[in-house]
Formats: sequence, C-alpha cells, structure tokens
Amino acid sequence: MLHLQSESTKRWLNQVDQHLDEVLIDHAHCERKAASTAMSLMNSYTENRELCVEMTRIIEEELEHYHMVMEVLDEREISFCRLPSGHYGRELNALTRPQEPNRAVDRLLIASLIEARSCERFKLLAQHIKERDPKLAEFYASLFESEARHHTTYVQLAEHFAARDEVMQRLDQLSAAETEIIAKGSPLARMHS
Amino acid sequence: MLHLQSESTKRWLNQVDQHLDEVLIDHAHCERKAASTAMSLMNSYTENRELCVEMTRIIEEELEHYHMVMEVLDEREISFCRLPSGHYGRELNALTRPQEPNRAVDRLLIASLIEARSCERFKLLAQHIKERDPKLAEFYASLFESEARHHTTYVQLAEHFAARDEVMQRLDQLSAAETEIIAKGSPLARMHS
Repeated sequence: MLHLQSESTKRWLNQVDQHLDEVLIDHAHCERKAASTAMSLMNSYTENRELCVEMTRIIEEELEHYHMVMEVLDEREISFCRLPSGHYGRELNALTRPQEPNRAVDRLLIASLIEARSCERFKLLAQHIKERDPKLAEFYASLFESEARHHTTYVQLAEHFAARDEVMQRLDQLSAAETEIIAKGSPLARMHS
Repeated sequence: MLHLQSESTKRWLNQVDQHLDEVLIDHAHCERKAASTAMSLMNSYTENRELCVEMTRIIEEELEHYHMVMEVLDEREISFCRLPSGHYGRELNALTRPQEPNRAVDRLLIASLIEARSCERFKLLAQHIKERDPKLAEFYASLFESEARHHTTYVQLAEHFAARDEVMQRLDQLSAAETEIIAKGSPLARMHS
C-alpha cells in the first residue's frame, strides 16, 4: 500500500542505464535529505512525542543508508559530489498548505510519497539490474522494505493533525500531483527523475 | 581543554535550584537542537566526508541523549513543552562571519563552544546536586564526557576550513564573546542562562 497512482516507466530505467553513477550519487544525497526532513519535522512538532520518537528512528535509518550508499560509491570508485537538484522534491514541497495543522499534514504526506516513490523505484531497479549487477540489485532489494515502512509511518503521523478521512483525501490529491510531477521527467538523471 | 574563558557561577546554580524542572525541559530541547545543528552542518558541507561521518555520530548521540532526558522528565512527571529560547544560542550564532570558508569555521567553533559550556555545566550540576539527588547527579556525570568529545571534534573539523593558527585565534575570540554572553545571564532559567 504505497498510495502511488503510477508506476515508473522504461524512460527512467533508460536514464539509470545511461547514468548509473550519477543516480547513485543522487541516492546518497536523497538519504541525507530524508534524514534532514525528519529532523526538520521533529523541530517543528517537538511537543508530539510519538512523532519525535518516529523521526529519531527514521533519521538513524536514513543516515545508516546514506553511509551504505557512500560505501557502494567507494567500491565502485565513483567520486561523490554535489549535484543540481531535480524538480521533483521542490515541486512536491511547493504544494504544502501554509496554515497549521494543514501544513503538518502536507509535510508528512509529501514525505510519505517521496518514501513511497523511492520504495517503488528501488524495487524496480533491483529487478532491472538483477542479471548484470547482482550485488547492487541485492543492495536495492535490501532497502525498499524500510522505505515502505517509512511511508506508512508518515501517513499514520498525519492522522495526529487531521481526521483519517481528511488525511486519506489529501493523500489522494497529493499522490495525483506526485504522479504528474514524476511523469514530466527531468533531463537530470536522478533517483526521482 | 574546553577552551572556555570563565567558570559558571553560583548565580546559575541558584537558578537551577529554583527552576530545575524548566532547566531539565530546556536540556531536552538542547539535545534536539544539537542534533539539528550537526544535521545542518552535514547539509552545508556535504562533500566533506570526514565532517559527514562525525556529524552522523554526533546526531545519533544527541538524539540518544534527548530520549534519555525525556525519560528523566517522565520519571519525575514533568510535562515536556516548548520554551521561549534564551539569548545564548542566538547571540553566539549571530557572530558567524557570512563568507565561506570563515562561515564554516565559525559555525563549527560556535558549536564547539556550546558543547564546551554544556560539558562544564553538566559537571558542575552533577557535583551540586550529588547529595540531594544522586540519581540525577549520576545522569549528568554520565553525559559530560561526550560533550567534551564533541567539543574536540568540532574544533578539529574547523581545521578543514582554515589553518590551525587561524582556527585557534578565532576560537579565542569566540570564546571571549561566549564568556561575555553567558555572564549577562537571563531571567529565563535555561541550561545556558
């Protein structure tokens, strides 16, 4: 139950095939950014004990994954560097409604959708490279389960700030927007291009 | 070697005696903010591998301490809540020079001084309450060593951005400013008031 309204296409897999190194570097940045998002939510909703406990767990997992991806880069002798960001995160985050508690709901649901898309793509990537790069395929197969768990955690936490019906309705709207944003693609080869 | 230019005074211990609950709540916020500072440094200097490794360690330790302080609050039936911030962090951070690499040096050295002051005060607090509150005294005695270690880590990392002489000279300047800022005190009872 990832609440995504589309599947990633061959277009993205072609981009991965052509620019795998860049996608791997972007993946390390994604893990760091995911930890940073969780830290930022913890700072904003510091009185919400359950949220803070869950954000701590997510921060620790994302940072662990970050270091795992950095090791993959080392093994492949890929130099880590900054990358210009794709439009995906920026356009999704721009959908956040400004007033609380809507803002909290949207920040959590947008985080949930980014985790969901990562999960879907890690799984797809693992299948796609299974024959030719079994080690990397195994790495991605080992990661997607935690992304699915983070997705669920974020959706559940959104229910601290709005009724379940309202959360699910907003998740549906944001997920439709996510499908449009990801469908546009990007000339930059990224985990979410 | 905490590079502090003053010792905390009886004034602060009196404040702690009168408002221990508030200081404990502030301490939980301090640990969260310390994790957040490390996350923010990791985001800013993402190409610096050693910095990122150290920041990850600090984030994990600070979040662990945050949860330990939250447990102390639970045991004492103290309700956690937001608190207006004291002037200490704000005034110290305002000393950050805007241009890189000076900005990096200052952010790291200011973080180092906040850790140093926490270390000094945790130790003082542990001694001060030893007789009447041995459990809390033991808790603070268990924490100050890691604060000292974080202080040293931040100072060492500053040397990635400037020569050692320059770093030590700037640390001396910032430490003098820290002593002035902490000496002013604050009517709000805080870990750094």
